[in-house]
Amino acid sequence: MGRSVLAHPQEKEKLLTYFETHIMKVLHWLASFGPDEDGGITRLLYSDSWLEAQRALAVKMSGCGLVTEFDEVGNLFGKLQGEDADAPSIITGSHIDTVVQGGLYDGAYGIAAGLLALDYLKRQFGKPKRTLELVSLCEEEGSRFPMAYWGSGSIAGKRNFEQIVHLQDGQEMSFADAMHRCGFGEGMGRNCRRDDIGAFIELHIEQGAVLESEGISIGVVDTIAGQRRLKFEVVGESNHAGTTPMHMRKDALEGVSVMIQALRREAVKLGAPLVATVGRLQVLPNMPNVVPGKVVFTVDARHADEGVLGSFCDWVKRTFTQLADERQLAIHGSEWFREEPVPMDERLKKQMDDVCKQMAISSKRMVSGAGHDAQMFKHICKAAMLFVPSRRGISHSPEEFTEPRDLAVGVLVLTELLYRLGYEGEEL
Amino acid sequence: MGRSVLAHPQEKEKLLTYFETHIMKVLHWLASFGPDEDGGITRLLYSDSWLEAQRALAVKMSGCGLVTEFDEVGNLFGKLQGEDADAPSIITGSHIDTVVQGGLYDGAYGIAAGLLALDYLKRQFGKPKRTLELVSLCEEEGSRFPMAYWGSGSIAGKRNFEQIVHLQDGQEMSFADAMHRCGFGEGMGRNCRRDDIGAFIELHIEQGAVLESEGISIGVVDTIAGQRRLKFEVVGESNHAGTTPMHMRKDALEGVSVMIQALRREAVKLGAPLVATVGRLQVLPNMPNVVPGKVVFTVDARHADEGVLGSFCDWVKRTFTQLADERQLAIHGSEWFREEPVPMDERLKKQMDDVCKQMAISSKRMVSGAGHDAQMFKHICKAAMLFVPSRRGISHSPEEFTEPRDLAVGVLVLTELLYRLGYEGEEL
Repeated sequence: MGRSVLAHPQEKEKLLTYFETHIMKVLHWLASFGPDEDGGITRLLYSDSWLEAQRALAVKMSGCGLVTEFDEVGNLFGKLQGEDADAPSIITGSHIDTVVQGGLYDGAYGIAAGLLALDYLKRQFGKPKRTLELVSLCEEEGSRFPMAYWGSGSIAGKRNFEQIVHLQDGQEMSFADAMHRCGFGEGMGRNCRRDDIGAFIELHIEQGAVLESEGISIGVVDTIAGQRRLKFEVVGESNHAGTTPMHMRKDALEGVSVMIQALRREAVKLGAPLVATVGRLQVLPNMPNVVPGKVVFTVDARHADEGVLGSFCDWVKRTFTQLADERQLAIHGSEWFREEPVPMDERLKKQMDDVCKQMAISSKRMVSGAGHDAQMFKHICKAAMLFVPSRRGISHSPEEFTEPRDLAVGVLVLTELLYRLGYEGEEL
Repeated sequence: MGRSVLAHPQEKEKLLTYFETHIMKVLHWLASFGPDEDGGITRLLYSDSWLEAQRALAVKMSGCGLVTEFDEVGNLFGKLQGEDADAPSIITGSHIDTVVQGGLYDGAYGIAAGLLALDYLKRQFGKPKRTLELVSLCEEEGSRFPMAYWGSGSIAGKRNFEQIVHLQDGQEMSFADAMHRCGFGEGMGRNCRRDDIGAFIELHIEQGAVLESEGISIGVVDTIAGQRRLKFEVVGESNHAGTTPMHMRKDALEGVSVMIQALRREAVKLGAPLVATVGRLQVLPNMPNVVPGKVVFTVDARHADEGVLGSFCDWVKRTFTQLADERQLAIHGSEWFREEPVPMDERLKKQMDDVCKQMAISSKRMVSGAGHDAQMFKHICKAAMLFVPSRRGISHSPEEFTEPRDLAVGVLVLTELLYRLGYEGEEL
C-alpha cells in the first residue's frame, strides 16, 4: 500500500471541496465553446467551436505547466515529464467532441478531471517518476462523420486516412477538407500512432443509472461490453383490415410483437450484464386500415462475454425463425455490426478497487454497456475506466447531470491512482 | 315463389355462359379508361379518365335502351321506365372511381353487372312494372380528395357542397375546381338528393377471402360492420441501449408489443365478425441503440353490432391503460373515427337467400368488414348487397381477381332479383 495524496485522512474533505469547486469551473468554461441556444453544447469534430475549445485547452494546459502538443489529427496532449524518460507514459483524458446538443459532462468531464489531477499533483509533489499525460481526444462520438473513435483509434493504429477518404458530413463537406480547415491532416496520420504509452485511464460519466440507483460513488469498469446488431425483415401479407378475419391473417407486426416479448423474457432470464433492445422498427404499408404485411426491425445485444453474447444471438435467430414459421411468416435476419468485449486491465482494476477501499469511497465493478476510447487504447497499452453516477442515466442531452460532489469523488480517485502510478511508482 | 328469368332450369348454364363472356367484355372495356403502365387502373374522381369513362358509359347505357341522366355531382343514371310511374325505383350499380392503381373489379363490377342485367331483362321481358335503374356513382374511394361516398352520399343527402369547400387534392386543386372542370357542380348539389328510390342493390367483390376459402359463390351481406379507429400514444423513457439494465427500462415498444398481443387474443376470443388491427405504428426516436421512449399506434376495430364494438373498444382502452400502468408507461388514447354498423334490409336479404336457394347457388350470410355505397342509400331506401369471391382477398391492387364464372353467378343472382322485384312485382 502506497502513500496517499492525502497527508492525513482528514484532508479528504478539504480536497473534495477543492475539486468540487474547480471541476465545475472547468466544465462551465469548456461549455462556453459551442453553446446551443437551448442549453445544450455542440462541438462537432473540426468545427469552429471544437477548434476553439482545443486551442483554449492547449493554453490552459500550458498554464498548468504541461508541455502541449497536437498530433496530426488534432489530438491534444499535455505532458508532465517524469524523471525516468524511458518509462512509458501514464495517460488520462477523454474526448472533447460532443453529439449534437449534448451535455456538460460526456467526454469533457474526463478531460477536466485529468487537468485538475495533474495540476494538483504537480503543484503538490512536483516532478513525477513516470511521465503523466493528459489527452483531449479529437473525436469519439461519430456525430459529424460516420466514423467513431477517430482520436483514440488514430493513436492506437486502428484508424487511418484511407478509411476517411470517402466520408462526408451532412453538408457534404469531406472529412479531409474539414480536417485541413483546422490545420490538421497535412501528413498521413502516421505520426499519430504511439508505442510509448504504459496505461490509459479514462474517467467518464456512467451514462446509465446503476450507480445512482444503488447509491454508489465509483464504478470500476470490468469490461466494455461486446455489441452485436442484427436486422430482421418479417414478411406476412398486407390485407384489408375490415375484410380479413383474424384467423386468415398473416400479420407481420403481430409476429414481431411476439418476438419482442420473447427477446425481453430471454434477456431478463439470462440476467445482467446482458441487454437486448429493439430500438428501430418500421411497419409496411403502415396504414391504419391495412394488416401489416412487413416489419423491419433491429436488435442490439450486448454482453461482457463474447461466448454468452454469441449464444444469445444464435438463440435470437433460431427463436425468431421458429416464431415466424409458426405464423407462416417469412423471415430474413442478418448481422450488420459486431464489436467484441474489451476487458479492462486486471491490475489497474485492482488498484482502483484498492484506492476506493482505502479512501472509504463506495465502489463496484461494472460492465460498460457503452463503447469508449479506452477500448481503442487497449490495443496498445493497459487500459482502465472509472465511472461516476449519471442522474437518471441520461446522456447525450442537455439534461445530462452529475452532482458536483460525485464529480469531485471521481477526480479524487483519479488523482490518487495517478499519484500511486506516477509518483509512488506502483507497478503497472 | 315467383317465376324465374329462366324459362327452364336447364337454361341456367346457357345464361351463365352468356354472362361470363359479356361481363369480361364490359370489364375490359371499362378498364380501357385509366389504364396504368403496370397493369393497374386509375380513375380518380373528376379526372380525365373518370370523365371519359362516365361519358362512354352514358352512351353504352343509351345503346341498351336506358334513358340516361347525370346529376349535379356527376352520378350517372340509366333508367328503364316501369309501367307504374309512381312506384319507387329499384336501383342497382356501384362506383366508377378507383384507388390509385386499382384493379378491374372494385366498383366497376357492380356497374357492369347491372348493365348486363338490365340489358338482358329489357330484351327478354320488355317494360318492367316498377322502374329499374342502373347507377354509376361518381365517387366512393376517397382516393383523390379526403372525402368518401361523395356519389351515394349526395343522393342520400349525407354529403353537401359545404363539406368540400376547403378540400384539395395532392396537386392542390380544389374539389370545386375539379368538379367544374368536368362540367358538374354548377348548382349547389341540391338536385342530387332523391326521395323516389325504393331499393338499392349493390353487387361487389368481397375484398376478403372468406367466400373463396369456403368455396361459396355468393355472400348475402347481413350488415356493413361498424368501425372505430383509436390512436394511442405510449410514453416511457428513451435510454441508452447499452447502459440501461433490463430491469431499469421503461421501453414503450415492449409495452406496446404486449398490447398488440392482448388485442389479438381478445379479438380471437370474441370471434368473428370482430376484427381488430394495429396497422400504423411509429417508434421514437427509432434508433438501433436507443431504448424506445415513445410509440404512437392505431387500432382499427370493426363489428356488426354496435354494442359489442363499443364494449370491445372500452376493453381495449381499459386493458391498454392497465398494461401501461404495470410498466410505468404513460398512455393517452383517443377515438378519431367512428361509423356505426349498417344492417341491410331484412326482406331483401331473405329474397336474395331465396334466389340462391332456388337457383341451386351456394350462398352464406356475411358481414362486410369494408364500407360500401349501400350504407349511404340505407338512409333513404331499402339497401342490400351481394358479394362474389375475391381471389386471396386482394383488392385495391392490379392483382384483384375473380373467376369469370363467379362473376357470372353474381350477375345471374342480381338479374333474377331484379326480375322478381321489377317484373314480378314482389313486395319490397
